[in-house]
Amino acid sequence: MFQFELLKESKECKARLGKIKTNHGEIETPIFMPVGTRATVKTMTPEELKDLKAQIILSNTYHLFLKPGTDIIEKAGGLHKFMNWDRPILTDSGGFQVFSLRNNRKITEEGVEFRSHIDGSKKFLSPEKSMEIQNILGSDIMMAFDECAPYPASHDYVEHSMHRTTRWAKRCKDYHTNTDNQALFGIIQGGMYKDLREVSAKDLIELDFPGYAVGGLSVGEPKDLMVEILDYTTDLMPKDKPRYLMGVGTPDYLFEAVEHGIDMADCVLPTRIARNGTCMTSRGKVVVKNAKYKEDFTPLDPECDCYVCKNYTRAYMRHLFNVDEILGLRLASIHNLHFLINLMENIREAIKNDCFLEFKDDFYKKYGYND
Amino acid sequence: MFQFELLKESKECKARLGKIKTNHGEIETPIFMPVGTRATVKTMTPEELKDLKAQIILSNTYHLFLKPGTDIIEKAGGLHKFMNWDRPILTDSGGFQVFSLRNNRKITEEGVEFRSHIDGSKKFLSPEKSMEIQNILGSDIMMAFDECAPYPASHDYVEHSMHRTTRWAKRCKDYHTNTDNQALFGIIQGGMYKDLREVSAKDLIELDFPGYAVGGLSVGEPKDLMVEILDYTTDLMPKDKPRYLMGVGTPDYLFEAVEHGIDMADCVLPTRIARNGTCMTSRGKVVVKNAKYKEDFTPLDPECDCYVCKNYTRAYMRHLFNVDEILGLRLASIHNLHFLINLMENIREAIKNDCFLEFKDDFYKKYGYND
Repeated sequence: MFQFELLKESKECKARLGKIKTNHGEIETPIFMPVGTRATVKTMTPEELKDLKAQIILSNTYHLFLKPGTDIIEKAGGLHKFMNWDRPILTDSGGFQVFSLRNNRKITEEGVEFRSHIDGSKKFLSPEKSMEIQNILGSDIMMAFDECAPYPASHDYVEHSMHRTTRWAKRCKDYHTNTDNQALFGIIQGGMYKDLREVSAKDLIELDFPGYAVGGLSVGEPKDLMVEILDYTTDLMPKDKPRYLMGVGTPDYLFEAVEHGIDMADCVLPTRIARNGTCMTSRGKVVVKNAKYKEDFTPLDPECDCYVCKNYTRAYMRHLFNVDEILGLRLASIHNLHFLINLMENIREAIKNDCFLEFKDDFYKKYGYND
Repeated sequence: MFQFELLKESKECKARLGKIKTNHGEIETPIFMPVGTRATVKTMTPEELKDLKAQIILSNTYHLFLKPGTDIIEKAGGLHKFMNWDRPILTDSGGFQVFSLRNNRKITEEGVEFRSHIDGSKKFLSPEKSMEIQNILGSDIMMAFDECAPYPASHDYVEHSMHRTTRWAKRCKDYHTNTDNQALFGIIQGGMYKDLREVSAKDLIELDFPGYAVGGLSVGEPKDLMVEILDYTTDLMPKDKPRYLMGVGTPDYLFEAVEHGIDMADCVLPTRIARNGTCMTSRGKVVVKNAKYKEDFTPLDPECDCYVCKNYTRAYMRHLFNVDEILGLRLASIHNLHFLINLMENIREAIKNDCFLEFKDDFYKKYGYND
């Protein structure tokens, strides 16, 4: 079962409200998806994620393929059971990771041969292999095996890569038969070239996927260009299917994504910056491990009602980071995930009340964005 | 407020049931106390400790004195508020740690001058200074500043050290005036020498502390000798005051402690071995990070009803350790703390039902102890 219902289109911009139904529950969109690369959202239990109202998490085909290996997750009865998470899961295709192995991969029309970053052993991923793995993982939303072209890249390179991504998308669709339980999304590529975005979107839409991602953005290009290409691309996408912008997680990029018609986004950012003691707050970032907070007995964010802000001070968190205690990472991760999940909840509320742009403006001013 | 009520003495051995009342709540004895060295029980939130029914935790004067420093905890309003733990806390005196700095400390009658293990800066601890720090920490139970003599050590060395510990205990008692809120325990020393244990106990009992610890055991001596000296020492101790055996946390040592009349014990063991993926189970230790568990889809301990055993498999925990994910440490820590806290609860129940020795025997057989 996979359904998308478009509940509302904003009067102010392209922002939309929607609902995705899966076998593991419903997802209100727009949504931010926490990332659990290796079958765990770093430092978090599933119950804690639920307390934060996480509706769906993302996990990574490449990493799970290498460790613990598909065989073990198959014997466990799939990824949901293996990691004790009974809400929806989206898995990526592994494409992004294997293409990132610049000097350790060989690309052919068939697929990508690569060496594991862990032990150097030879491995192979292809559209069919990626589908096979994701079928075993049992994710509710699967992604087609693609190349996310680097930035900058020539028109020739991106055109060639984009067409191969489309051919691979067709092979993914042909191979994937468990369509009742797992929805396969196509990924629109084309880099920063509008003509190529147009071709990619048209070809993939013909294949009639139940959802579409915008790939190849937020890869180092200027923000203006990202927004321009995103805006151009979402106009090409069907309105009645969910739209997913891959790898985006800073507050401003989430606002831009929603404003330009995106329903789903994911990023490792909230748990990654937590490891450096960096926390997002309504007044901008606070690097709580810094010495200047050692006698600051106020909460991380006075306007936040998360578990961390209700119970701990900056001084205590600074102490935990200063002595390398894991509870520090945990508290920073909980707070940052809450911040983005709660932000998206507020964004949904603002769309509902037709005040998204005002909400964005207020947020930017307080957060310290000059935009 | 500090009261100890002796509720029952076993008919089978010296085991006892009791209740300690403090300003931060009651403690049923015998009890195992988790250790939160740096104002955090490693990886755990206070709420998780409460879910495990932890009634009291221990924290360390030496470590908190160095980081974050007493001034910060004072400004935070004491250790309970600083770390968000509202149940009882016991603090050690710092003596054990400074005496361990073999080559970086100078002992005089006044106290111990030492160099911080963190930055090499010169510091000083004395009976008065230890009391001053513990008064600021605001622990419910404070420990007198003592020397825990090493093993082996000569009769001369231990005699000299023990007498100084007694003189220091008197200075602690004289300095500590906040007796309504914080109970100061004396520490009986004397190494493996019964004559010295006798003198130490007699002299300290004359000072009339509200509770007594047995120090200088479990420092490397054979188990038989530990039990012999413990048994000898507890006979010297008043029955109407709580008895605390310091630094003991393996299941067999906890059984021996209780059997010989101990009410309280603490150890870093459950969280320390968790970091190596070692878990205590009803059938003995399971080193869950080992490859042999990679396809073991059973719980850590089939007889355990903790959060970890109800929700996760050995295979998943092995995976988490294999890819260095913090959730692995968390799950192993939760399980191990539950194991010891639950063991003590079962021990209390066995004492109540006059079947402690049978319970011990059954446990040893299953756990694999040859005793």
